[in-house]
Amino acid sequence: MKQLLIIGIGAGDPEYLTVQAINAMNRADVFFLMDKGASKVKLLQLRRDILERYVSRIDYRIVEADSPERAREGDYSGQVQGLNHAKQQVFERLIDEELQDGQCGAFLVWGDPSLYDSTLRILDAVLREGRVNFDYQVIPGITSVQALAARHRVPLNAIGQSVQITTGRRLAEGFPANAQSVVVMLDAEDTYRQLDDPELEIYWGAYLGTPDEILRSGRLVEVGEDIQRTRQAAREANGWIMDTYLLRRGPKDA
Amino acid sequence: MKQLLIIGIGAGDPEYLTVQAINAMNRADVFFLMDKGASKVKLLQLRRDILERYVSRIDYRIVEADSPERAREGDYSGQVQGLNHAKQQVFERLIDEELQDGQCGAFLVWGDPSLYDSTLRILDAVLREGRVNFDYQVIPGITSVQALAARHRVPLNAIGQSVQITTGRRLAEGFPANAQSVVVMLDAEDTYRQLDDPELEIYWGAYLGTPDEILRSGRLVEVGEDIQRTRQAAREANGWIMDTYLLRRGPKDA
Repeated sequence: MKQLLIIGIGAGDPEYLTVQAINAMNRADVFFLMDKGASKVKLLQLRRDILERYVSRIDYRIVEADSPERAREGDYSGQVQGLNHAKQQVFERLIDEELQDGQCGAFLVWGDPSLYDSTLRILDAVLREGRVNFDYQVIPGITSVQALAARHRVPLNAIGQSVQITTGRRLAEGFPANAQSVVVMLDAEDTYRQLDDPELEIYWGAYLGTPDEILRSGRLVEVGEDIQRTRQAAREANGWIMDTYLLRRGPKDA
Repeated sequence: MKQLLIIGIGAGDPEYLTVQAINAMNRADVFFLMDKGASKVKLLQLRRDILERYVSRIDYRIVEADSPERAREGDYSGQVQGLNHAKQQVFERLIDEELQDGQCGAFLVWGDPSLYDSTLRILDAVLREGRVNFDYQVIPGITSVQALAARHRVPLNAIGQSVQITTGRRLAEGFPANAQSVVVMLDAEDTYRQLDDPELEIYWGAYLGTPDEILRSGRLVEVGEDIQRTRQAAREANGWIMDTYLLRRGPKDA
C-alpha cells in the first residue's frame, strides 16, 4: 500500500512546525511541492528551508509539479471545482508514477490542511475514482488565523461568543448577522473598506510569521485607509501578498 | 522587566507542540500550572510530561496554584467575568511574588491561547490595574478543532464557505443561520441531540490527541444517539470529558 501524509506546516515561520509534523516529514520518501503564481519562488524556497532544517534523513526526493491555475470565468465555486478537477489529475499522476508501493509521500500544506485548502478534497476525489489506491493521514498545523491572534495578543472570541471564519467574497455580502468576531481570509479586494460600523475594530496582518510580517490594528474607521495603503504598497514591493484580519465589535476585553 | 509567555501546548498529544513553543518553554524560569475539577490530576500530569520531554534546562521551577471555580449562579457571561476577576487576583499575586525582575514566567495553555481561553483577557486586566508590570508574548498552539478535523481527515469549510466556531450554549439557541460548517466547543449538554435537520453530518471527538481518544462520525440522525451514549459512558469511566464536534450540512465533499 502507498502512504500519503498531508502535513500542515504552519503559517510561514519555520518554528510553527509541530513535533508531529517534523516526525511525519522524516517518514516521507517523496515530497510533492506544488506552488503557483507570483508567490511561487518564495514559497518553494520556504518549504525547501523547512525540509533542510528538520529532515535528518538524506535519501528523500522532491518532486515539483506545476499547479493548475484557477479559471476566472463562471461562479467562484465552479472555478474552484474546475481547478480541483485539474489538480486531481496531477495528484493521481504523481501518486501513480512517483510513488512505489510501500513508499510514503508527503504534501506540505501552508497553515492547516483543514482550513481553506483543497488537498484533502482532491485526495478524496482521487480515491473515489479508484484508479490509484493509498492510505493517508492528516497532520494539523498553525493557521494564519492563529498567527494573527498570537502576534496581536488578542483572543479570537469574546466571552462565550462565537467566531466566524470566512472569506472576502462572503464578507462582501455583508457583515455576518449576530457575529461579534469575524476572521477574514482570501480577501483580495480590501472588503473591510466597505464596512462603516464605527464600533468595529480590525486586527490585520500580512506575511504572518515571516521576516516581512506587517501588523496593524485599531478602530476600522481610523486605520482602514492606512491598512489599504500599506497592503497595496507591500503587494507592489513583493509582487504578491498573503494577509488576513480579525474584525470585532467592541473593545478587546469585551 | 518581568517577561511572561502564554504558550499554546496543543490539544493533548505532546507531539502537537511547536518548535516555537518548545523554544519558549526553554526560556522560562517559572511555570505557572493551574488546573481544576475532575480533570485536574490528569491534565497536570500531561503538562509535567511535556516539560520533562521538551525542557532541557534543569533549573526551572513549577508553581501550582489553585484555580478559582466558576460560580453557577447568574448569566454565563457574568459567571465567567466573576471567575476571571478571581483568577486575576491569583495571577497578580503569582507575578508579584513568584517572579523576579528579569525573569521569565510561562503559562501553558491547552490548545491555543486565542480560542476559548481566558489567560490573555486576565493578563490584560492585570496590566490595566497597574499594580504589577510585565511584558508578554503569545505562542499559538494546535486547537482541538484542528485535531478533530485532522483525525477525521475532513476539511472544516466547504468550498468558499465560512466556518463558525461556537459553544454548546449558543448552539442551544438554534443552528446558526446560513452556516454550513459549525464547530461546537464547551458543550456539556449534548446539544447536537436537539437538532433534527436530516442533512446534518457530525464529526465528533473526545480526549483528542490522547491515548483515550474516541472518534465518531456520520449522519447526525443516525449516529447522534450512539455519540450521546458513548460520551456518557466515557465521562463516567474517566470522571471528566473534553470533547468537540463539527456539524456540516451535506456530504463531506460538498
